[in-house]
Amino acid sequence: MKPTYRAMQVGTPGTLELVQRPTPEPGAGEVLIAVEACGMCGADAADIEGADPALQPPRVPGHEVVGRIAALGAGVPARWRVGQRVGVGRLGGHCNECDACRQGQFQLCRNQPFVGASCDGGYAEAMIARHTGLVSIPDELQAEEAAPILCAGLATFNALKKCGAEAGDLVAILGIGGLGHMALQYARRMGFRVAAIGRGPDIAGDALALGAHVYIDTRQEDAAEALKRLGGAMAIVTMLGDATAIAAALPGLAPQGRLVLLGGGKEPLPLPMGLLVSGERSVLGSITGSPYENEKTLNFSVLSGARPWIETLPLARANEAYRRMRSGEVKFRMVLTMGSPD
Amino acid sequence: MKPTYRAMQVGTPGTLELVQRPTPEPGAGEVLIAVEACGMCGADAADIEGADPALQPPRVPGHEVVGRIAALGAGVPARWRVGQRVGVGRLGGHCNECDACRQGQFQLCRNQPFVGASCDGGYAEAMIARHTGLVSIPDELQAEEAAPILCAGLATFNALKKCGAEAGDLVAILGIGGLGHMALQYARRMGFRVAAIGRGPDIAGDALALGAHVYIDTRQEDAAEALKRLGGAMAIVTMLGDATAIAAALPGLAPQGRLVLLGGGKEPLPLPMGLLVSGERSVLGSITGSPYENEKTLNFSVLSGARPWIETLPLARANEAYRRMRSGEVKFRMVLTMGSPD
Amino acid sequence: MKPTYRAMQVGTPGTLELVQRPTPEPGAGEVLIAVEACGMCGADAADIEGADPALQPPRVPGHEVVGRIAALGAGVPARWRVGQRVGVGRLGGHCNECDACRQGQFQLCRNQPFVGASCDGGYAEAMIARHTGLVSIPDELQAEEAAPILCAGLATFNALKKCGAEAGDLVAILGIGGLGHMALQYARRMGFRVAAIGRGPDIAGDALALGAHVYIDTRQEDAAEALKRLGGAMAIVTMLGDATAIAAALPGLAPQGRLVLLGGGKEPLPLPMGLLVSGERSVLGSITGSPYENEKTLNFSVLSGARPWIETLPLARANEAYRRMRSGEVKFRMVLTMGSPD
Amino acid sequence: MKPTYRAMQVGTPGTLELVQRPTPEPGAGEVLIAVEACGMCGADAADIEGADPALQPPRVPGHEVVGRIAALGAGVPARWRVGQRVGVGRLGGHCNECDACRQGQFQLCRNQPFVGASCDGGYAEAMIARHTGLVSIPDELQAEEAAPILCAGLATFNALKKCGAEAGDLVAILGIGGLGHMALQYARRMGFRVAAIGRGPDIAGDALALGAHVYIDTRQEDAAEALKRLGGAMAIVTMLGDATAIAAALPGLAPQGRLVLLGGGKEPLPLPMGLLVSGERSVLGSITGSPYENEKTLNFSVLSGARPWIETLPLARANEAYRRMRSGEVKFRMVLTMGSPD
Repeated sequence: MKPTYRAMQVGTPGTLELVQRPTPEPGAGEVLIAVEACGMCGADAADIEGADPALQPPRVPGHEVVGRIAALGAGVPARWRVGQRVGVGRLGGHCNECDACRQGQFQLCRNQPFVGASCDGGYAEAMIARHTGLVSIPDELQAEEAAPILCAGLATFNALKKCGAEAGDLVAILGIGGLGHMALQYARRMGFRVAAIGRGPDIAGDALALGAHVYIDTRQEDAAEALKRLGGAMAIVTMLGDATAIAAALPGLAPQGRLVLLGGGKEPLPLPMGLLVSGERSVLGSITGSPYENEKTLNFSVLSGARPWIETLPLARANEAYRRMRSGEVKFRMVLTMGSPD
Repeated sequence: MKPTYRAMQVGTPGTLELVQRPTPEPGAGEVLIAVEACGMCGADAADIEGADPALQPPRVPGHEVVGRIAALGAGVPARWRVGQRVGVGRLGGHCNECDACRQGQFQLCRNQPFVGASCDGGYAEAMIARHTGLVSIPDELQAEEAAPILCAGLATFNALKKCGAEAGDLVAILGIGGLGHMALQYARRMGFRVAAIGRGPDIAGDALALGAHVYIDTRQEDAAEALKRLGGAMAIVTMLGDATAIAAALPGLAPQGRLVLLGGGKEPLPLPMGLLVSGERSVLGSITGSPYENEKTLNFSVLSGARPWIETLPLARANEAYRRMRSGEVKFRMVLTMGSPD
Repeated sequence: MKPTYRAMQVGTPGTLELVQRPTPEPGAGEVLIAVEACGMCGADAADIEGADPALQPPRVPGHEVVGRIAALGAGVPARWRVGQRVGVGRLGGHCNECDACRQGQFQLCRNQPFVGASCDGGYAEAMIARHTGLVSIPDELQAEEAAPILCAGLATFNALKKCGAEAGDLVAILGIGGLGHMALQYARRMGFRVAAIGRGPDIAGDALALGAHVYIDTRQEDAAEALKRLGGAMAIVTMLGDATAIAAALPGLAPQGRLVLLGGGKEPLPLPMGLLVSGERSVLGSITGSPYENEKTLNFSVLSGARPWIETLPLARANEAYRRMRSGEVKFRMVLTMGSPD
Repeated sequence: MKPTYRAMQVGTPGTLELVQRPTPEPGAGEVLIAVEACGMCGADAADIEGADPALQPPRVPGHEVVGRIAALGAGVPARWRVGQRVGVGRLGGHCNECDACRQGQFQLCRNQPFVGASCDGGYAEAMIARHTGLVSIPDELQAEEAAPILCAGLATFNALKKCGAEAGDLVAILGIGGLGHMALQYARRMGFRVAAIGRGPDIAGDALALGAHVYIDTRQEDAAEALKRLGGAMAIVTMLGDATAIAAALPGLAPQGRLVLLGGGKEPLPLPMGLLVSGERSVLGSITGSPYENEKTLNFSVLSGARPWIETLPLARANEAYRRMRSGEVKFRMVLTMGSPD
């Protein structure tokens, strides 16, 4: 790699500034990645708006990173080679030593960096990553289409695997954005009967094209009532932080149905205990997943033909990309590409 | 049986009145039970205070009923014989025909009576019951000690089986009353490390005697902090309706821990979504269980020596018994006995 | 219905004879079905060849029955109405009373008839069935395409749900006949990576058309080696009775992989214990399933477009149909139709 | 430590010879353990008899090792300190890099040494171990009572956790030796109804003292018939390699029951497929477990009071100890102690 690289780092909260940085050497257990593409996740907003001042500025956001290994630090296993295509998601590499890791629950490692938040991420031409966070990228996927799978894909695929529904059961996807549009594709390809729940009629056509059997517009009808008419959902998978919207859909769960949460805002979810008890319903939180699970997600995407719907902009136009993402106009994932200086 | 029987039926809300009723004939699929003992469950209060006027009047409460079959209606399977010792819990007999029953999920049957609420219960010398709700009582148990197992025992034993913890894991029982005192015994006998969570110091000795390894007094310390000091609970099983108390204990769940709800009041539980997602925690509602599961609960109680701690009063003193139960003085289950006229 | 109906009953072992029988009245809990189509399952051979003389001749075989309710016996629930389209599979209706039924495990009921073996089946224009064995047929399915789903479909769909594999995992279907060709379709539609294992090259094209990603010809290569080259199978689902063929494929299971058995001949399967222990592998027997699960199978077939590949012959040509089935020429399911007298 | 240490290494097959070796330095990721006690497992026989010449010569057997860390190699995590009490079981430390490790299934790591077989074990005053194989020993346990838990305890505790039975269900332990006597204790303390299956009457009293509710003597009665009389076993856990004995007990499994294998000889288990299918029974192989699971086993032993019944002999008398173990006289675990030179 060149001695310096370009990066978009957080400037005044809410803005990104293009900087030139010296290319670092990977430390022990680390690799240097020549980044090719980086998805823009809704969670980036917290990093960019500076929600947590403890996370030292100037930070480079971005945790859906695809590129090639440019250099290896000491002690990196032979599995990883210079030139190899790799990715990194939100969880930046587990420690293999804490209690969670010793249980094999790497996604819950207490010592792992959050990429783009507690360590620099992929809005840049280069990035340092722990080898334990690396994900192998299948040849069949372009960098810009693999990138969103590393967080939006992984989080939803894992959530669907844990949702308790069987093939043919009704599964509702609540919130049809970057994560939801992957969830619709995966849910359909796993054999579920899929209901998409969104706001307004504009997205209905896309939802059906992505794999939904039915679209529920919460501006037109009550989500819970609509689900009940369909027999009740065995699972509702939601990526929303909006407790009110989730609470509104919750009574649409069938007996023994499960609500799977992928995120959450500051407001607690008002949980009707009687609804849970009388129907043996459940609520489960799901975090993204481990690198191995990420590889399974990528491989399933290749096998089944699931692909993110993306818009791309070059790195230098990251502020424009961010504004478009925040405005909700992007269908359905913005991806920054590093290939051309623009 | 005699042509009439004595029953304590709900009079003015909050009181019970002794009446003499003609002994009924069991209809098709029903049996007549000569009641010997009936436990007094916290849920009876709703029935006695007249929470649901649609269920009125005048109803006989009681859903922890033990007695002997005195007569068989038409079409009752040969499994049940006159003279046999049987019990009935809260769920008064599934229909075998609804969607839940056809899935074998009898506890979720949509057409079953709630004993003591939508049909007459066991505060009486006689009771009619559907054969599908009958539970066989082991010879080793006295009627008055079997009775509380039919609801308090079943609900907690089933909840513990579904709580996700393994032998040796920390399981917290939140609320040490009629249900909780059974939960402590079962949890200990299933090999869990058991924490009892209660209010005030008075109950500490009993909790330890019942099987708790440790007692947490929420007047002295924060329940969640106490659980964290113990390493975090893999499960919290609660029978409380008090959302505030549950919410206070919730952060004491270990990663991948589960809160199991057995009841719930009118206030929703304020669920911190981030806590669930970041640690893949879950919440599960659990309803009592089927007659077969009730028999497993009774058999486990015999096998393991778990027994309710009871006070008994004769049927005619049901008002006194009810006042004692409501005052919280009973350790830990009041049982009405029918044997003597007082 | 007419006062008599035509049936093909077992004559000298291995042959069927056309007889005219008086149309029976349904007894208590039974319905009379006007049969429209009946699939011909490999298991019928045992019934037709008279494997078990205790099963009284002259028996009418057939346990993939679709028709309409022509009359209701006493006590049949309102769920079932005259004129309604219904089906019956191998398990002829559970008793709701035995230990298995009281656990909700209807497929293991100890008192249920085996249709076409211990009670008359569907190679006939009319049939008596217990209401607990009835399956509702979706409007979207023709009688002759619904019929094979009731046994071949149910058995394989349930086996796949219990096979332990996740979406994207390699699942091998061993034996591509009546059951296997349904298994391939379901496995593909549930998101698995599907390997078909068969004998000889002729079936390769069909296997791929049915959904297999890869075809393994055991005349050309060792099944276990082929599976290992693909990374190892998380599940092998087999309907074969041939212990040698199963044992040959078994080492192709990945660590923690599961062999699911749907049948079995007289020879025991020689199970290498070390292979199981060193890789924590497992073997699971799976019986067809309950009527509710049968309805889920039919609904999934409608939802996902899975359909049996069938040949049809009229009832009177049942001997010819049977010879074709036994010769292995049928691709993949023979179905008798009752519509025309031929 | 001293510059040399004493070890019992395999001499001519079937014998151990006392040697003095130079004390090694731990390499990167390794620790040096000052051994205090080492259990003698049935599996040691294969190592001592020289079953696998590729592992020769001259190897020190022993994989139930307890001692204190005497020195740390480079890169050992801070979790491990000099002086700390630690143990090592059969699995000598996973690689954290292979596919199994990346799935968190450390017990299936493809690159781990088998202690006492592919690397030197604990019949010695000192031993080198990978830090990933280390197990923390609770203060409550003596070295010689902790040692057998590290393999016999772990293997059986994990098997019981995976056996599918619930509290109160009948669980049979087939083979009452070093492993079986731990299995009986754990099974009882997990709330199962426990049947011990052994040969001859001599062991009956011990089996009951260890926790069995019932003892089945296969010289007096058929194991399967005896289990059926008890209602059928929901699980049979066996550590035998004797396929004939296992096959004889197998029909004693209840419907949906599970056979758990912990070992296996050269003869395959003749598995009756029809028995599995008709009752949805299963067979599962279980390997010992990870260090974290080993710590859970030790902690459960402390919590519940389960302890191995041991005989001890000093290291130098290892040949005598081995002969006693092989003769079947030991009740139930021989442990070598390093404390005194004898």
